[in-house]
Amino acid sequence: MIVVMKRDAGEKEIAAVVARVEEAGMKPHLSRGVERTIIGVLGDVATKPILREAVERMPGVAEVVPISKPYKLSSREFQQEATIIRVGPVTIGGGELVVMAGPCAVESEEQVMATAQAVKAAGATILRGGAYKPSTSPYNFRGLGEEGLKILALARKKTGLLLITEVMAPHHVEVVARYADILQIGTRNMQNFSLLDEVGKLKKPVLLKRGMSATVQEWLLAAEYVLSQGNRQLMLCERGIRTFETYTRNTMDISAIPIIKKESHLPIIADPSHGTGKWDLVTPLALAAVVAGADGLLIEVHPNPQQALKDGAQSLNFENFQALMARLTAVAAAVGMKVAAPLPK
Amino acid sequence: MIVVMKRDAGEKEIAAVVARVEEAGMKPHLSRGVERTIIGVLGDVATKPILREAVERMPGVAEVVPISKPYKLSSREFQQEATIIRVGPVTIGGGELVVMAGPCAVESEEQVMATAQAVKAAGATILRGGAYKPSTSPYNFRGLGEEGLKILALARKKTGLLLITEVMAPHHVEVVARYADILQIGTRNMQNFSLLDEVGKLKKPVLLKRGMSATVQEWLLAAEYVLSQGNRQLMLCERGIRTFETYTRNTMDISAIPIIKKESHLPIIADPSHGTGKWDLVTPLALAAVVAGADGLLIEVHPNPQQALKDGAQSLNFENFQALMARLTAVAAAVGMKVAAPLPK
Amino acid sequence: MIVVMKRDAGEKEIAAVVARVEEAGMKPHLSRGVERTIIGVLGDVATKPILREAVERMPGVAEVVPISKPYKLSSREFQQEATIIRVGPVTIGGGELVVMAGPCAVESEEQVMATAQAVKAAGATILRGGAYKPSTSPYNFRGLGEEGLKILALARKKTGLLLITEVMAPHHVEVVARYADILQIGTRNMQNFSLLDEVGKLKKPVLLKRGMSATVQEWLLAAEYVLSQGNRQLMLCERGIRTFETYTRNTMDISAIPIIKKESHLPIIADPSHGTGKWDLVTPLALAAVVAGADGLLIEVHPNPQQALKDGAQSLNFENFQALMARLTAVAAAVGMKVAAPLPK
Amino acid sequence: MIVVMKRDAGEKEIAAVVARVEEAGMKPHLSRGVERTIIGVLGDVATKPILREAVERMPGVAEVVPISKPYKLSSREFQQEATIIRVGPVTIGGGELVVMAGPCAVESEEQVMATAQAVKAAGATILRGGAYKPSTSPYNFRGLGEEGLKILALARKKTGLLLITEVMAPHHVEVVARYADILQIGTRNMQNFSLLDEVGKLKKPVLLKRGMSATVQEWLLAAEYVLSQGNRQLMLCERGIRTFETYTRNTMDISAIPIIKKESHLPIIADPSHGTGKWDLVTPLALAAVVAGADGLLIEVHPNPQQALKDGAQSLNFENFQALMARLTAVAAAVGMKVAAPLPK
Repeated sequence: MIVVMKRDAGEKEIAAVVARVEEAGMKPHLSRGVERTIIGVLGDVATKPILREAVERMPGVAEVVPISKPYKLSSREFQQEATIIRVGPVTIGGGELVVMAGPCAVESEEQVMATAQAVKAAGATILRGGAYKPSTSPYNFRGLGEEGLKILALARKKTGLLLITEVMAPHHVEVVARYADILQIGTRNMQNFSLLDEVGKLKKPVLLKRGMSATVQEWLLAAEYVLSQGNRQLMLCERGIRTFETYTRNTMDISAIPIIKKESHLPIIADPSHGTGKWDLVTPLALAAVVAGADGLLIEVHPNPQQALKDGAQSLNFENFQALMARLTAVAAAVGMKVAAPLPK
Repeated sequence: MIVVMKRDAGEKEIAAVVARVEEAGMKPHLSRGVERTIIGVLGDVATKPILREAVERMPGVAEVVPISKPYKLSSREFQQEATIIRVGPVTIGGGELVVMAGPCAVESEEQVMATAQAVKAAGATILRGGAYKPSTSPYNFRGLGEEGLKILALARKKTGLLLITEVMAPHHVEVVARYADILQIGTRNMQNFSLLDEVGKLKKPVLLKRGMSATVQEWLLAAEYVLSQGNRQLMLCERGIRTFETYTRNTMDISAIPIIKKESHLPIIADPSHGTGKWDLVTPLALAAVVAGADGLLIEVHPNPQQALKDGAQSLNFENFQALMARLTAVAAAVGMKVAAPLPK
Repeated sequence: MIVVMKRDAGEKEIAAVVARVEEAGMKPHLSRGVERTIIGVLGDVATKPILREAVERMPGVAEVVPISKPYKLSSREFQQEATIIRVGPVTIGGGELVVMAGPCAVESEEQVMATAQAVKAAGATILRGGAYKPSTSPYNFRGLGEEGLKILALARKKTGLLLITEVMAPHHVEVVARYADILQIGTRNMQNFSLLDEVGKLKKPVLLKRGMSATVQEWLLAAEYVLSQGNRQLMLCERGIRTFETYTRNTMDISAIPIIKKESHLPIIADPSHGTGKWDLVTPLALAAVVAGADGLLIEVHPNPQQALKDGAQSLNFENFQALMARLTAVAAAVGMKVAAPLPK
Repeated sequence: MIVVMKRDAGEKEIAAVVARVEEAGMKPHLSRGVERTIIGVLGDVATKPILREAVERMPGVAEVVPISKPYKLSSREFQQEATIIRVGPVTIGGGELVVMAGPCAVESEEQVMATAQAVKAAGATILRGGAYKPSTSPYNFRGLGEEGLKILALARKKTGLLLITEVMAPHHVEVVARYADILQIGTRNMQNFSLLDEVGKLKKPVLLKRGMSATVQEWLLAAEYVLSQGNRQLMLCERGIRTFETYTRNTMDISAIPIIKKESHLPIIADPSHGTGKWDLVTPLALAAVVAGADGLLIEVHPNPQQALKDGAQSLNFENFQALMARLTAVAAAVGMKVAAPLPK
């Protein structure tokens, strides 16, 4: 970090900062300019977060500027080669484009089975569906719980599709992990640290959605929770951020995709269903995410969006999902990606 | 809700909407205009959230506009008179201005005791301090846990101050409730629904902070989780929202205070420490919150902010806190409020 | 619009609203529900903006909900077929992908000439470059003025490229129009209504950038200023919006592209240089914009970005621009678009 | 500024940065750490904005961090004592609380005269009212123009109130300055640089509203345009910023008031009418602004808000304005301010 002293800072104040830095075991470097003095503090400041705040409050200090990134295990500097996650026969992050599709919420065996067969036929390899559902209002549908997980497992058995499903509370991690191939952490839980700690102890892949008002840096720090517990099978998911625009439910931040590719070695998935909140924007944004570098897509599909218990407005019906998959193949090819091959039943 | 049909919607499409609404047990009212038809659906739509999404997807429908507010138990319409929460001899929401002050994090018995005595002497009635601390990075200080709660309890015993402290996970609710007089739900957990359910079952007061990108409506819906579990001793806390401005840590939304007063019967507390992130902005924003109608303040105070393990930049030292309290008394009087009388030891 | 009455609104209040609506020459439709009454006001309310605000203030009124869109000439409802703008031999909005490239600011004849030749060779058809430059600080470079326009005209003469350049003030419209093939309105001037009126009187194409915190609706209303003055040769340009994220200069709202395509008949151009502020994000976002439906791109290119007087951090050098064009051709083909053929000299 | 080199930057890259800095006439200071090298560039970098961007693009450079503030004439460092603006017998910025009140738009002589008399009787000293009105839609009311200015002048003559009114275009500056005592620059024009240049040449006070998505720094840089043209009679006005919250029209950033007081010597006015967009939030936010340090208020008042041609929803009627003034006197006294004495007729 760089400590910028005020113009009128005296020698005593400069010496106090130098002493505080040395007390923390770091080495200060002074640069004395005509107008002011700056003090460089090089080394592993990331592990001494308190130092920065302490120095910021010291007399004579104008500003403290961090220079190292606060995340480590998730950074490209730490690991040059891309993380490739294997889920059964599918690889995520290694050049294949993986499509995860299915209903927002598991409503019934019939609904899940029909959707699973349709998305498999259209080329998806992973089935999504929520058994535990976050809901802004307590009066809305909150999911079928373990019953829903069983329905998903049945669909897996019948279709060969792999399963991704959300876990919302630390005490549900065990049961969800028993059924799911990938555990999803939703946007509202990106900073649910107990939950992150818990999935960090698993040996199963985790998908971490970006918080709806999280910066890229905060998102990577949340990833750090999972990674530092030992679980390196982590992928990230851009799902739109909150802005002033009200036309869409969120503003899909497509730039986050190449940013994650640059800053991190973790795979990045795009969720244009939540990213836009409108079914007729899903396909253009899905294509945009792919050419921007996404390793996979998370798409809401429902047999009858009008009757959906949740998020019907952003779900594709089977026909629209097939149309998306057709366009996807051509667009992926144009950027050297290949849609993951269908799984055997 | 109001269903606005497209200009070119045909009779068949209108009939389908009417049928769908009736199927949900509601009564549709048609208005046929020169340009288009609208269908009013009156009654308790809040309990039928699915209906809205379903109708939105139907052919011929241009837009669906909700008209009832989705929150109930927290609304002024549901309860006209203000909720007054009693914590020992202190009342919150009944005209007394309650000041909750103390360190961001419990660091040591010495630090807590010194702060408790100082804030009590200056006129605070409730001691704040975190034993379980949310932290953006896993490498930062995450709190002393139950050890910290014991230190807080000791400070209560010695000073007579009441205690507010944060709970971050459902499985900590029991232990935190054993020590705290008020349980605090932090901004990152405003939509941690398992946690809300859990504190909703308590018989103790809860303070629910606004999520950093939550609308007032989403905040009241989160309140609804707690209230609908049976716990009516709930107060809200404005602590700044996330905007494009980088000068402050958050943008303190002072207007949320009179809005909550208008829309809800729940008490509203202001936290200008997190709301600004800068200690020299805390006092002006605290005064602003009070004249705008706040029932109390949550203020970070530290014996030596430069040495704080967390949030030193936004903490007042003892001297600055005394100065705030002195100004507060005058300003509160100007709007007919009175700072709560100091508690006996 | 829909007038939603309060639950306790009396007959007198309802009658007053009815009377006020009729006074404005509109026909009210009453729907009486168990809980409350709503009054539909159908017809061309867009031309009676005052009525809405007036009714909102009337006693007994809970809410007024607009149902018609406030923009007209720019809407798809008004004009089904896409607007195609002809600039010399180039068409914009008709299926060709048009690339506009060049330096942020005109600095010298040498710089412009070198860039013009390089972007032409790589496949651009329109040269961009600012002679009048908006600058956040008065101490920064503000452009060469008419001298810069002359340099651009010289580059057009030598290369055959067409010209787009920004106009910032009503009294500059005449001189800029004398040199430019397309006049650009920048993000800070999206609501500079005198300027919009002025370019609306021209017979030349205009590109209107989205304001950095403008909703899609406000943007289309700004377009309405130009269109209603008689100039229908208008194209829009998405250039990133202001959000809480600080990694990028702006957040490029890719979803705005399909939204404009749906709501409006006007062509839509994407500017990933300003949209991201970082040169290494320009190519992925340019590709994303194209598959999402953009009719063209606006790209900053500089012979030596390190020496640029403005926006060097987001400019491509010649080599990177060539690489972008190569990828663009493949990606455009995948969505059925074709990069516009190079112009003869 | 501080140049942070990458970890793997070589000696050649470091030498190149040093050379580039020296070429710009600045003196570089090297600090070599274990992990990386940083280069301090001290001196007046604000006048060399290009240097920063150039260095950012150089090989081996990880980041460039500015350390001086880019604004000068508006800063407290440049001028310690507060700027006091004299408008007739009224002073702004010197401890008196100045209330500017009146209709959003001048509609008729009758409306202005009634309002002028009412606000004067209630204690305002300056009459506000727009003759040139910005309007999001071209189909809305855009003001009476010079006719409106004449009505305002008449009201001044009859009541003794001073006048503030908006100017929207450079070619209107002359006519507006002929009638107004203070010229107002609206939020949409905060970065209309031609307009800022023009009012910078006047010898009359100017009020500069914050852009709706402008940071404090950008706002002060806009102020710099006016000041650097020679007009030092400048005051700023906080009027709410654009956020994700839709309950209010804008989010009033009360913290901007003490921030401006700290960073600048210019007076700061608060506009809670636009800041909230709802008349029943105006009074609490006005009081909040005053205790946070505002030098004055800008309040919309209308004889009959229901009939207002513009912004009726946020206007106070006479009775509510009187109530505000009564509360204001008490609250201002509590923070040592005094409402400016009424002017003689």
